Amino acid sequence: MASRAGIIVTGTEVLTGRVTDRNGPWLAERLRELGVDVAHIAVVGDRTEDIAGALRFFRDEGLDLVVTSGGLGPTADDLTADVVGHFQERPLVFDEALCRRITAIVAPLLARWPNVDPQAMASATRKQAMVPDGAIVLEPVGTAPGLVVPPPTGTAPTVVVLPGPPRELQPMWEVATGTQAFRAALGATVEYRQTMLRLFGIPESEIAETLRVAEGGSGALEGLEITTCLRRGEVEVVTRYQPAYQAAYERFEATVRERHADTLFSDDGRSVDEQVADALLAAGQTIATAESCTGGLLSGRLTERAGSSAYALGGLVVYSDAAKVSLAGVDPALIARVGAVSPEVADALADGAREALDADVGVGITGIAGPGGGTQVKPVGTVCFSVSTRERVRVTRTMLLPGSRFDVRDRSTTVALHMVRRVLLGGGHPEGL
Amino acid sequence: MASRAGIIVTGTEVLTGRVTDRNGPWLAERLRELGVDVAHIAVVGDRTEDIAGALRFFRDEGLDLVVTSGGLGPTADDLTADVVGHFQERPLVFDEALCRRITAIVAPLLARWPNVDPQAMASATRKQAMVPDGAIVLEPVGTAPGLVVPPPTGTAPTVVVLPGPPRELQPMWEVATGTQAFRAALGATVEYRQTMLRLFGIPESEIAETLRVAEGGSGALEGLEITTCLRRGEVEVVTRYQPAYQAAYERFEATVRERHADTLFSDDGRSVDEQVADALLAAGQTIATAESCTGGLLSGRLTERAGSSAYALGGLVVYSDAAKVSLAGVDPALIARVGAVSPEVADALADGAREALDADVGVGITGIAGPGGGTQVKPVGTVCFSVSTRERVRVTRTMLLPGSRFDVRDRSTTVALHMVRRVLLGGGHPEGL
Repeated sequence: MASRAGIIVTGTEVLTGRVTDRNGPWLAERLRELGVDVAHIAVVGDRTEDIAGALRFFRDEGLDLVVTSGGLGPTADDLTADVVGHFQERPLVFDEALCRRITAIVAPLLARWPNVDPQAMASATRKQAMVPDGAIVLEPVGTAPGLVVPPPTGTAPTVVVLPGPPRELQPMWEVATGTQAFRAALGATVEYRQTMLRLFGIPESEIAETLRVAEGGSGALEGLEITTCLRRGEVEVVTRYQPAYQAAYERFEATVRERHADTLFSDDGRSVDEQVADALLAAGQTIATAESCTGGLLSGRLTERAGSSAYALGGLVVYSDAAKVSLAGVDPALIARVGAVSPEVADALADGAREALDADVGVGITGIAGPGGGTQVKPVGTVCFSVSTRERVRVTRTMLLPGSRFDVRDRSTTVALHMVRRVLLGGGHPEGL
Repeated sequence: MASRAGIIVTGTEVLTGRVTDRNGPWLAERLRELGVDVAHIAVVGDRTEDIAGALRFFRDEGLDLVVTSGGLGPTADDLTADVVGHFQERPLVFDEALCRRITAIVAPLLARWPNVDPQAMASATRKQAMVPDGAIVLEPVGTAPGLVVPPPTGTAPTVVVLPGPPRELQPMWEVATGTQAFRAALGATVEYRQTMLRLFGIPESEIAETLRVAEGGSGALEGLEITTCLRRGEVEVVTRYQPAYQAAYERFEATVRERHADTLFSDDGRSVDEQVADALLAAGQTIATAESCTGGLLSGRLTERAGSSAYALGGLVVYSDAAKVSLAGVDPALIARVGAVSPEVADALADGAREALDADVGVGITGIAGPGGGTQVKPVGTVCFSVSTRERVRVTRTMLLPGSRFDVRDRSTTVALHMVRRVLLGGGHPEGL
């Protein structure tokens, strides 16, 4: 029986979507790696009652461990330490030594912000040095300390309290997992394996059918926890299982391979971004872009990885027709004849990008992201793509992408990366979305 | 007493972060607009027990309404209708007419995906036409219908079941709110006002101090639910209050204005992106970018809004030094002398972008996003910015930005937008982050 954990993400700003939470999923993955089963992430506003309600829920569900993120800052709406202390029947006490350590941390900040009131900073520091009695303090990475707060009796969950900023939370999590109190909260852990298959160019219903075939009415998928989802136009099939079910997993994967040979593009968790980057590195090739409707997002995606300067030279954002002509060298007569959103102009953009940056591979994107600008012949969502190489390989494609302006722009970058992947690696056949 | 609601976001892919949830926050905002108090968003995996656990929690908390998103698809891990039906003691029944309507919807999809198995599609359709007995069906926007599922007795919450894709969920939500069953679930609603103040260039501790000053030990903030958060380098102060507390809010806002005149840049919810777009539109001016470390992300941000072609002409992504020279016309001797990451090169990029695209305003960004590439003198996070105009106004700034490669690139776009805002509007003084 695996240990079970819940995650509480605090912050009215997360509840209302002004901030997108990255901590909940990150913590869920880390817990899974430890063989801990994560059932829920609760996102709660900065109100004592709501945070306490989530803690009670997790206790009532019989969880062994609760991890919280956020609410450790200097303002009055940062309540987590107080609420967790109360929940674990451990009143807050002032930790004088911790206060001195935080003071030493914020001293350089005072220097950096010359107009900051030192009294305000001292008061903020004092608040952050109030810790539940008997809790283990995790040294601040930013200015806020984390906590491991054991239960008052053996029956309630241990609560790990972490700050909200990911760059503080992540290293502090590693420290938390090393504490005796943390290890005591988890019983014997169960090993899980997790695999991901990625497919591009089929609807999710096809995967549903494959699951039915693989199941075969005979329980062949028993022991496999399979989830499928659509993400940025790709279908992801994630399977989690204990080692005893390895053979069942392999049979399932073979079925997927057989039925979806032409659309399965990744079986090792690598994204198309990573595959394109690795293929460019392996071939010692460089890439350049000329983007209209995506406005630089493909280029932004190509430069996301550290070390991308080895293959990403840069690109042209040619939002206006004038820029298509002056920067990418598109013939204005061509635009006049076939329109800026056309396979011909996409080709000219790919070539223009390649030539302007002296790159091996060029990508051109031109389309109608909407919500306005569509016509009967070229409705909103129409996007033309072209990939061309120095060796005169060329792939051109026009697609009608569904969704909002955001969706069309985002999916366009995915389609373009799959086309580049195909040109570089061959195989696969990205028919659609 | 306001009605209270909870939101359940289902999907193992959301729990593990492979998909970022946008529905929870969106629904929370819509509920708030209706005067409904939202305490929790629960993110749960695709497991019957976990979804049922969240429903029980919300029932035990005494909520009036629960809204779910996701889990209505064709695969076996799409469980929501079944679990909610069971929870409300309404077994699933086959809705023949609904099945026919879904069949009509998917017919064109069958045509679009020539290799799709019609049997698989029929089976998926049949699953999606199983609805809890007595539930109100919300017509599909995609292929999945939504549901409003009343409680078996008057004491449990009504559950609104919506599909996961935002473009399906959002219009269906509007239909759901119009149903009698939905309105019956909510008692008299309470009006709330919500305001947002945005500041740039101060640490959060300064706002904490302002809150203490405004409070003044005399309960002057009573009735105001104030939350502060840091987002992309900006501080957001959101206040929610009932109309009776309008005067208290105005006193609070006056205090913020007085203490933070130089860093308060938005008091009407508008983002710096919107302010820049509006300022460019008002002045009839155009903008162009030359980006190194941000790789096109600023340009992507400038073209996010529909209609941005009125001011965003395009830009240059000059990731390599060769591109800085060939596209933006930076003097290679300058790069050799002061380095690619330097105020001088940022200036040359801003001018080069402006000239290459014949724009009124040019923005140059060059920096070290990390994790490698830092030096003693120019550590990781060092980013040089320049904004220049046709009228020879120029602002140049070098900053040391904290955080990961992602953070540095993202915050760089925020800094650049604030510099553009300042050049266009004057006022404000974005000293730091």
